[in-house]
Amino acid sequence: MSEFSLIEKYFTRPASQTDLGVGDDAALVRIAEGMQLAISSDMLVAGTHFLHDCAPYDIGWKALAVNVSDMAAMGAQPKWATLAIALPEINQAWLAEFSRGFFACADAFNIDLIGGDTTSGPLNISVTIMGEVPLGAALQRDGAQIGDDIWVSGNLGSAALGLAHLQEKLSLTNELETCLNALHTPTPRAALGLALRGIATSCIDVSDGLLADLGHILKASNCGATIDLEKIPCIDLLKNDLQNSQFQTFILAGGDDYELCFTASPKQREAINLLSKQIHLPITNIGTTNVDIGLQAYYKNNQLKLLKQGFDHFA
Amino acid sequence: MSEFSLIEKYFTRPASQTDLGVGDDAALVRIAEGMQLAISSDMLVAGTHFLHDCAPYDIGWKALAVNVSDMAAMGAQPKWATLAIALPEINQAWLAEFSRGFFACADAFNIDLIGGDTTSGPLNISVTIMGEVPLGAALQRDGAQIGDDIWVSGNLGSAALGLAHLQEKLSLTNELETCLNALHTPTPRAALGLALRGIATSCIDVSDGLLADLGHILKASNCGATIDLEKIPCIDLLKNDLQNSQFQTFILAGGDDYELCFTASPKQREAINLLSKQIHLPITNIGTTNVDIGLQAYYKNNQLKLLKQGFDHFA
Repeated sequence: MSEFSLIEKYFTRPASQTDLGVGDDAALVRIAEGMQLAISSDMLVAGTHFLHDCAPYDIGWKALAVNVSDMAAMGAQPKWATLAIALPEINQAWLAEFSRGFFACADAFNIDLIGGDTTSGPLNISVTIMGEVPLGAALQRDGAQIGDDIWVSGNLGSAALGLAHLQEKLSLTNELETCLNALHTPTPRAALGLALRGIATSCIDVSDGLLADLGHILKASNCGATIDLEKIPCIDLLKNDLQNSQFQTFILAGGDDYELCFTASPKQREAINLLSKQIHLPITNIGTTNVDIGLQAYYKNNQLKLLKQGFDHFA
Repeated sequence: MSEFSLIEKYFTRPASQTDLGVGDDAALVRIAEGMQLAISSDMLVAGTHFLHDCAPYDIGWKALAVNVSDMAAMGAQPKWATLAIALPEINQAWLAEFSRGFFACADAFNIDLIGGDTTSGPLNISVTIMGEVPLGAALQRDGAQIGDDIWVSGNLGSAALGLAHLQEKLSLTNELETCLNALHTPTPRAALGLALRGIATSCIDVSDGLLADLGHILKASNCGATIDLEKIPCIDLLKNDLQNSQFQTFILAGGDDYELCFTASPKQREAINLLSKQIHLPITNIGTTNVDIGLQAYYKNNQLKLLKQGFDHFA
């Protein structure tokens, strides 16, 4: 099977919102008037971002989902993606499952795969996603105001729990499926991101862990924050044993959550709670921004020592 | 050195035509009215696309240059790029040189680096490039007409010669520098691509070899072609020994040339020759499209047996 027939078989599908898709030197799309183009790239490497025996369907889903999550964090409507992939060999069963997972995510969020590259090499998947956001409406990291509420969608720590189980650091039973789903097929919060235009003052997706990612907002917005561990949304297994320092790490710095963390004026509480009901997604107020420099987390009125500030691929 | 300080030190520079650059969940840009956005991605893998001991400056230059070449082949003005890179380790000397080469190319073609990703893993460089082209003016592969001239810019085969030297398949002396430059720091034909709007009926960049890439035009345009080996532009070393089958392969199927191959009506000959003088770049008529199916190459009136149709990463 040649590179070209591989692309045709596994990665070429009709594109509904694209002028010219896969198969030329470049794809061509049009951006609606009054819109900015939002662009983000993420690279997934075997052994770093997923275990070598990870199901190819899940790798395909996640490779696109983590990029959709970046669009959500900007308040952008994802529309187009390119996929560059290095493969150690042509394994058609693997490719069929990988592309099935990739396109399942593309279909779920109405994204056209418009181009990319296929080559031989150690397994590496690099996706660039593009979306539209009305001029000036993007949710940037630098807009948090002193006294804003800090909110988090869904639950944190589940993906880290799932990974710890796979690494045999602990053993899950009842929560296993939930945690492995969180780890392998995360649901990016696309609808929430769009709905937060005009509501959130800043937004980020929690990919490297809450402390690191909220830290990016604080640094960009030049403010501090206080958060309450007991308020952070997580599954009962974690919630019921918050003094466990391993659990604290999963919640605060586990990463791979792909929930949105955002700030908003306290005046928006009612709107956010209503939104939460409308999109059937818990959104939880976990703390407040303030003038102090840095990020402080409290548990039962005691300040936690924050050592690990999140995931760093080179730490 | 953390992932974030690495990005800040080596990959963050002022962006002149970008609303929001490196450092948020996504970059933000605006597309001028009446323009289509052209998008292309290329992935470079150590050992596949460059030798492991290749100078990091050259890797940085080439990683962007091959993408600029895709924009040229579409007649698009390159403007923005993202860079996703997997590194086996943080080697600051390597990174400094890599980013110097990358930004040298970015400066040469006025491209903003607007985002990307940095992670650990086997060396892999994935660039997505974006550019603008007036609606309907893009140079696609499917527009060649029967009876069009076939043109090639610059010289073909030099990069393949340089690679053969490095692989000790032959030994270059006088031509070594020219051939290694062609291999390591190719000059994408950006000005030519822009100038061909309204002149060329189809266009492609020669990355996989002339036979393969011209073949893509013929397939997409549903026509055949006859080309004359003696007309194909190449350096004297090759030109003086065209009966050498190894040399024929370098010229016809060597790849990594990053010249433009395009078709145009014979009425455009004068315009193309004038353009060649204006941009100081040889542009050579190498043959004609016709109704026959497939691609035929002649040498001294004998039809060449075309076995190797170009570079396939999985062949």
